[in-house]
Amino acid sequence: MNPLTEQVIRSFQQIDNERHRFLITTLIRKLHEYVEEVQPNEDEWLNAIQFLTDTGKLCDEKRQEYILLSDVLGVSMLMDQILHEKNDVQTPSTVFGPFFAENMPVRPFAASIVKDGQGSDKPLLVRGTVRDTQGKPLSGVKMDVWQTAENGMYSGQDPEQTADNLRGVFISREDGAYAFQTILPVSYPIPSDGTVGRLLNYAQRNIWRPAHIHFKLESPQHQHLVTHLFLAGDEYLQNDAVFGVKERLIVSYRDCQADAQSREQYGINQDYRLIEYDFILTEA
Amino acid sequence: MNPLTEQVIRSFQQIDNERHRFLITTLIRKLHEYVEEVQPNEDEWLNAIQFLTDTGKLCDEKRQEYILLSDVLGVSMLMDQILHEKNDVQTPSTVFGPFFAENMPVRPFAASIVKDGQGSDKPLLVRGTVRDTQGKPLSGVKMDVWQTAENGMYSGQDPEQTADNLRGVFISREDGAYAFQTILPVSYPIPSDGTVGRLLNYAQRNIWRPAHIHFKLESPQHQHLVTHLFLAGDEYLQNDAVFGVKERLIVSYRDCQADAQSREQYGINQDYRLIEYDFILTEA
Repeated sequence: MNPLTEQVIRSFQQIDNERHRFLITTLIRKLHEYVEEVQPNEDEWLNAIQFLTDTGKLCDEKRQEYILLSDVLGVSMLMDQILHEKNDVQTPSTVFGPFFAENMPVRPFAASIVKDGQGSDKPLLVRGTVRDTQGKPLSGVKMDVWQTAENGMYSGQDPEQTADNLRGVFISREDGAYAFQTILPVSYPIPSDGTVGRLLNYAQRNIWRPAHIHFKLESPQHQHLVTHLFLAGDEYLQNDAVFGVKERLIVSYRDCQADAQSREQYGINQDYRLIEYDFILTEA
Repeated sequence: MNPLTEQVIRSFQQIDNERHRFLITTLIRKLHEYVEEVQPNEDEWLNAIQFLTDTGKLCDEKRQEYILLSDVLGVSMLMDQILHEKNDVQTPSTVFGPFFAENMPVRPFAASIVKDGQGSDKPLLVRGTVRDTQGKPLSGVKMDVWQTAENGMYSGQDPEQTADNLRGVFISREDGAYAFQTILPVSYPIPSDGTVGRLLNYAQRNIWRPAHIHFKLESPQHQHLVTHLFLAGDEYLQNDAVFGVKERLIVSYRDCQADAQSREQYGINQDYRLIEYDFILTEA
C-alpha cells in the first residue's frame, strides 16, 4: 500500500466505534486506489470538486440531488440487493424513490385511487393476494400504493393534483386479497436540470423511467417490501435511468368486459383493464 | 463482477471521450466494490448522503469544504505525488492550500514581507539559491512567498491585515540567490466548524497544521514548484491535518548577530534568525 494511504488510514484509528472505523478506513483505501488507478490531472480533480459542490448546492427540502446521483450510479439498487434480496421466493424489491407520502387515507377493498377525475377511457383494476413464502394468504397487511398521473407527475410534485390523488392505503382481507382501481401509469423523465442530468446527457444516457406503480407492504410478522410493478412493453424497461427493473416485476394487463363478478366484487360496470399480481413477503 | 455493476458500467459506454469514459467507469467499479465490501445499512447510506449534501452547502466564494475534505483524506497529497514527484533530486512539492493570492508586489532582494509592523523581537532572514537538478544556479526565477501572521491568519482571511502583508514576489538574482525577511510562521487550525471539522473531531484527529512558509517557483524552462518550508521542532510535524509534511522540507533556523555581511548584503542591523535553503527545480 502507498505509505501515504497507510498514514491516512492510521490517522483514523482513534475512532472508537469499530463499524465506523471500518467504513471510513475502507473508504480511504478505495478512494486512494481509485486516484492511483486513474491518475487524475489537476483539471479533472477540480472538476470533481466542482461537481460534488454543485450537487450539494442543488439539494433542498424538495430536492435531493445526491440521492438521485446514488440512483443513476446504481448505488441505490446495490443497496436494495444487499438489504432486501433475502431469497428467490419473495417478491423482488426495488428503489423507494422520492415520491412517497406518509399518512394517506385507508381506502376500502377495490376503491379507486383516482381522485381528480382525470384518466383514460377505462379503469385499471389491480388485484391479487398477499402471501408468505409458504403460500399462506396474509390478512391485515398494510399496502401503500402511489403512482403518476397521465402527465407523468405525482401529487406533491404537481400543484394541480390533490394531495391524495393516485395514492392510498389498502389492507389485505381475511383471505389475503387486495384490490384497487386506478389508471395506467406513464413513463416519466427524472429531474434533468441539475448535475445528474448534465452527467446523463453527457453520457448520452436515457433519463426516463418506465411506467410503474409503487407498492410498500408492511406486516408486523414480515419484512417490509418496497417495490414497483412495471408495465410490459414499456420502451424504457431495458434502460431505466435508475436500474430499478427486475424481470419478475413486469406485468401485463388484459382487457376485460364488465360482468357479474366485476360488478359485485369490484363495482366495475364498464370495460376495464386488469392486472393480477400476488405479493409474497418474507418472514421477519 | 456483480451483474448490476456491469449494467451500470455499460450504461456509460456511449461517452465518446475515452479518458472520461475510463474515469467514470472506474469510479463506478470502485464505488460498487466499496458498497459490496462494507454492506451499508439504510442509516449509514443516508448519513453519507447528508454528509455530501452538507459539505456542498458549506462552499461559497470564500470557502471550499470539498477541497478541505480532499486535503484531510490525503487525496490532495496523493495528487501531489502523482503530478509532481518526478525525481528524488528536486525539492519535494506539497499542497498548494487555499491562501495563495495572485499579483503580489515584486520586492527587491532581501526586502521584508512584513507590512503591518507586527512581528516578534527579531527578523527572520530566509536565503538560498535556486538551482536545477545538475546544481546550476537559476536566475530570473519568480518566487511567490506567503505565510501566516502571528495570529495564525493569512492576509485575506484576516480583515486587520493589509492585502500584501506577509506576501511578496522575489526574482532570483544572476547568481541564483534569493533572500527575504519575515517573521516566524505559526501553526494554525484548519477550519473546523463544518463537516470536515465534525469528521476530524469524531475521529479524534488533530486539526492543526505545523508552522510553514509557502513557496511557488516559476521558471519558463522548468516545472513549477509549489511547496512549503516547515519549522523543525513544531509539535504538529508528525500529524499535519492535511499530510503535507515531507522530511526534506523541514528546516531549522539559527540565531545570528548583525555583522558587516548582514548589514551590507541584507540590511540587517540587529540580532536575527536565519534559514538557509536551496530550491532545486526539474527541467520542464
